[in-house]
Amino acid sequence: MKLTVLGCYAATPRTITNPTSQILEIRNHMFLIDCGEGTQVQLRKNKLKFSKINHVFISHLHGDHFYGLVGLISTFMLLNRQTDLHVYGPKGIKEIVLLQLRYSNSFTGYNLYFHELEAKTSEVVYEDEKVVVKTIPLKHRIYTNGFLFQEKVGDRKLDIDAVREYKIDACYYQKIKNGKDITLDDGTVIPNDELTFDPIKPKSYAFCSDTMYDESIVPLIQNADVLYHETTFLETEADKAEKTMHSTAKEAATIALKANVGQLILGHYSTRYANIELFREEATTIFPNTVLADDGKVFEYD
Amino acid sequence: MKLTVLGCYAATPRTITNPTSQILEIRNHMFLIDCGEGTQVQLRKNKLKFSKINHVFISHLHGDHFYGLVGLISTFMLLNRQTDLHVYGPKGIKEIVLLQLRYSNSFTGYNLYFHELEAKTSEVVYEDEKVVVKTIPLKHRIYTNGFLFQEKVGDRKLDIDAVREYKIDACYYQKIKNGKDITLDDGTVIPNDELTFDPIKPKSYAFCSDTMYDESIVPLIQNADVLYHETTFLETEADKAEKTMHSTAKEAATIALKANVGQLILGHYSTRYANIELFREEATTIFPNTVLADDGKVFEYD
Repeated sequence: MKLTVLGCYAATPRTITNPTSQILEIRNHMFLIDCGEGTQVQLRKNKLKFSKINHVFISHLHGDHFYGLVGLISTFMLLNRQTDLHVYGPKGIKEIVLLQLRYSNSFTGYNLYFHELEAKTSEVVYEDEKVVVKTIPLKHRIYTNGFLFQEKVGDRKLDIDAVREYKIDACYYQKIKNGKDITLDDGTVIPNDELTFDPIKPKSYAFCSDTMYDESIVPLIQNADVLYHETTFLETEADKAEKTMHSTAKEAATIALKANVGQLILGHYSTRYANIELFREEATTIFPNTVLADDGKVFEYD
Repeated sequence: MKLTVLGCYAATPRTITNPTSQILEIRNHMFLIDCGEGTQVQLRKNKLKFSKINHVFISHLHGDHFYGLVGLISTFMLLNRQTDLHVYGPKGIKEIVLLQLRYSNSFTGYNLYFHELEAKTSEVVYEDEKVVVKTIPLKHRIYTNGFLFQEKVGDRKLDIDAVREYKIDACYYQKIKNGKDITLDDGTVIPNDELTFDPIKPKSYAFCSDTMYDESIVPLIQNADVLYHETTFLETEADKAEKTMHSTAKEAATIALKANVGQLILGHYSTRYANIELFREEATTIFPNTVLADDGKVFEYD
């Protein structure tokens, strides 16, 4: 699992900072999470093969989280993309994108699917044999969802030395990986745990931006390996956080602590702060394993 | 008159090039012409005080000419702009911007006026005592206008030594600048040309992007001091130019020649060309005073 932060600052794009956008690489997927203005340039700067993006998750319809989407969709069009593209986001996202394509008399050569979200409780929005993605309903000024990306428990890992020793034919390998015991030609039953190792522990990533402090998300993100939680303000501006329905670093850390996550990544800093290290300092008083997102920063999890 | 090119490449924004956007500073105005994605960052990079922009002219509704507009409008909102903002562009621009503001539950604290264009012949879209702006109907795949910015003939310039010599009171200065003769107390009539110099020759700038070769614009831009004319392709790709309703460098130069403009600025290069100098070489065979636009380039005209 690998997270590349393309932008993690609130409000307006600037010469040195970008609005929210992330790439989560997980089990051969390249998921794009939010898409502020300039995301396609950030993708290029970070040398990410963005033709591999097939799923885009938009948290909410504030500009700093989606103004780059229509441009990315248009660029895919100009690059003659053929692969389907799926967009998951609040109701309205389809109307906004299609209106602009219609006025420009443009049509995508690829299938563009919108999965509009309206539910107020968590729901599965994407699932395949390896990964499941669920919404995390958040409390912000407009309808907003975070997203929880969970790897599924994979196959058991084949102990290649063991299967060779027993001279087991390769055609049984998948059966073994599925956890089945094997009966040899002489009738001996080899229990599965002699032929396999435990599967890789599945990882999970919870993306929560933007939201006020909201304990109701804790059960949803319980024990997540990694939590990205917004912190637009420091405690010294707690009044502004409350008024604009954002969180402080301390509040983000409190959610991380209550949810018992492995690591907390902070982001969505207000551009009023010149030194983002202050966010980490505030959060670590509550939750020690806190790190700072920054544009271009990569987090890898083995 | 001063032109700052913020972006002058066709199609998609890249790490090193930007889609169309320009700032024309003329008679104390700061006009924004087109607003591709990333324009607000380009304004910051070029250290332009963009709170001074009160008028935005959008040529057409292809993404590379207006996807940055809604972000700029939102940024003005976040910066607590109070001054009116006027947007001139094709019918549809208002619906596109307001739809996005509505879904984000955002309201501008300043007055935002849309002047939607539908006319197929040239019309005056802005006028004050110093400047007039007219549309230049262009031929492209969708409804498109260029814009002609013309300074008006200003007041005559006061010959301060002369008026002092005749001991003329300052309360008559405006009358003199308006071209009137002056009668002294002793009855002597001083003709205006003894008291003034000719006014500064008014300048004009014609912005034409995007368009196929179209001689019908020649009378509209006749004798313009400066013509910016798109050239997406070279003559070697004339078939692509024709198909996509764009121009070649040679065609842009031919328009400049027929219109007898002072200078031709080329731009809107397809990103397929690594060396834009080829555009200048092709155009100068027809129109020698051809220069190349490039992102961040400034042209000043005294």
